[in-house]
Amino acid sequence: MDQANHVLVTSTAFGVPRDVYAGELGPALRLSFLEDVAPEDRQRLLSEVDAAIVLDPAAELSAADISAMRALRFVQTLTSGIDHIPAALFPAQVKIGNTAGSTALPIAEHGVAMILAAYKRLIFEHNQLAKGDWGFFRPNRSLHGATVGILGYGGIGRKIAELLRPFGVTIEAINRSGRTHDPIDYCGSLADLGEAIRRWDVIVVSASLNSATRALLDRALFERMKPGAVLVVLSRAEIVDEQDLYSHLVAVPAFTACLDAWWEEPLKTGRPFSTRFPFLELPNFIGSPHNSSMVPSMPRNMVVSAARNVARFFHDGTGAHFAAPGDLAR
Amino acid sequence: MDQANHVLVTSTAFGVPRDVYAGELGPALRLSFLEDVAPEDRQRLLSEVDAAIVLDPAAELSAADISAMRALRFVQTLTSGIDHIPAALFPAQVKIGNTAGSTALPIAEHGVAMILAAYKRLIFEHNQLAKGDWGFFRPNRSLHGATVGILGYGGIGRKIAELLRPFGVTIEAINRSGRTHDPIDYCGSLADLGEAIRRWDVIVVSASLNSATRALLDRALFERMKPGAVLVVLSRAEIVDEQDLYSHLVAVPAFTACLDAWWEEPLKTGRPFSTRFPFLELPNFIGSPHNSSMVPSMPRNMVVSAARNVARFFHDGTGAHFAAPGDLAR
Repeated sequence: MDQANHVLVTSTAFGVPRDVYAGELGPALRLSFLEDVAPEDRQRLLSEVDAAIVLDPAAELSAADISAMRALRFVQTLTSGIDHIPAALFPAQVKIGNTAGSTALPIAEHGVAMILAAYKRLIFEHNQLAKGDWGFFRPNRSLHGATVGILGYGGIGRKIAELLRPFGVTIEAINRSGRTHDPIDYCGSLADLGEAIRRWDVIVVSASLNSATRALLDRALFERMKPGAVLVVLSRAEIVDEQDLYSHLVAVPAFTACLDAWWEEPLKTGRPFSTRFPFLELPNFIGSPHNSSMVPSMPRNMVVSAARNVARFFHDGTGAHFAAPGDLAR
Repeated sequence: MDQANHVLVTSTAFGVPRDVYAGELGPALRLSFLEDVAPEDRQRLLSEVDAAIVLDPAAELSAADISAMRALRFVQTLTSGIDHIPAALFPAQVKIGNTAGSTALPIAEHGVAMILAAYKRLIFEHNQLAKGDWGFFRPNRSLHGATVGILGYGGIGRKIAELLRPFGVTIEAINRSGRTHDPIDYCGSLADLGEAIRRWDVIVVSASLNSATRALLDRALFERMKPGAVLVVLSRAEIVDEQDLYSHLVAVPAFTACLDAWWEEPLKTGRPFSTRFPFLELPNFIGSPHNSSMVPSMPRNMVVSAARNVARFFHDGTGAHFAAPGDLAR
């Protein structure tokens, strides 16, 4: 056995070619794919692994597998969100890296598409036209002059701010630190949300799901929103109280909600798509099937982002991007 | 009677307050509203008028009225398009001003909304979700890297180029001169369209309707478009051959068309909305009821733009913006 650091890929999801992993990790790291490992070699190989690249590690590795990974120092996810990974799955000293930002571009485009579709009521008017109802005189809205609030100012949120700049909007953000060097109009922390949200015409949810953000947008905050506000949920639906959102949509017809992320998604539940309330029957609601990142470049970008972060970790333990441990599932 | 130039407003459409006209025209110009004029004063007043601000002059003025307007030098429309005004309605020496650009901002936003809605298939996926069909695995598209062709590079086209800049797209334009000082990637004239259109992922129609553009986009040009191209029609549907578009949509499912302007609109025809072909039954089609400019600021912006242009005309006959006479109806 050589002394090279050893990286184990536990999932080759999305069919990205193996040479993409190898190319980004470089020749100095040893690379194994779990699906190649013979049962009789599994324990020994796991004991040698310094880092793992994972998709859904609770499904890909057993408790015995993880116990055997005595040299493990770094777990790198292929995903940006890590709220599907139990906090107790790996020992506390194992650092976690995610692929934050790797899919930000298409998700941000999707967010802008939803904001504009809501402002222009594209879906409602299209479906009315299909019924022969010519909505020429129903008033339309310009985004120019609006205040856009971004809850969770990471890769997606920053890209949305960049895409919206020529639209003549005011950009306000909420992040963990309450600070940014970006040229936006306001940045606060979660403690400032209750006041900031009163100013927002558009509310973009691009935050991580964690104990501070779960069910954060509830009736109390909906009541502070402008009546004509547009809510766009891109990261996790669990940040929004499902029942309170539905009640608000029914009570305030001028308000619009756009969801790409949902509370119950087939990939999470194993069941067909459903909602507890009939959101999709409402005229002031737009839904998409969490496909904002599903562009052809996505799988490769995720693998490149993950493998690069692993390479940085071994090149310089502090040079890698680490996920916030608080974002792991409790 | 004083020597002030005399401006007659033949339509107070949209209910914009009269002081908006007066404020923009300034105290040096005499201002009358046709609806105030008593029948016995009509002939005399019309004979004194130097300029008229009109909406639909063929409906607002009779042939006898126009004959009486012997001092008329300038007709200013409240609209940007002038293809509803017969070329022979006013004497040839009367100059025509339009409000090009006054509604460009909301129309450009609408165009970007449609481009993104087409790329993200927002309407199709929303309606599938409403039927319980979870489209997570249907591939999505990023606008990043696309080539956007703008046919008619006036107020709307230039604003779309500006709004799309941070999306990482290549911008190409076709205008009358084939030249622009704007920082875009290519500018050609109509003679270049046949070659340019082969490069375009998005085709925005924001040209005036005239003899050179009527039914310009026909089967021959559709066959040159990329199979996955997105066509967005914002100015006049008559620039597109209705039957050829429908046939192309049916033959090429990857192609998407978005129409805000239509061949038969209730305001033009006096009949309910209808199309000769069932466009709205197609999954690769998005329609809106020509409401792209119908934002609250629109009527006032049109009046301000029109009155300012009239003030410029009298301040300096060459300082005003003149519409292209070829855009009048033949």
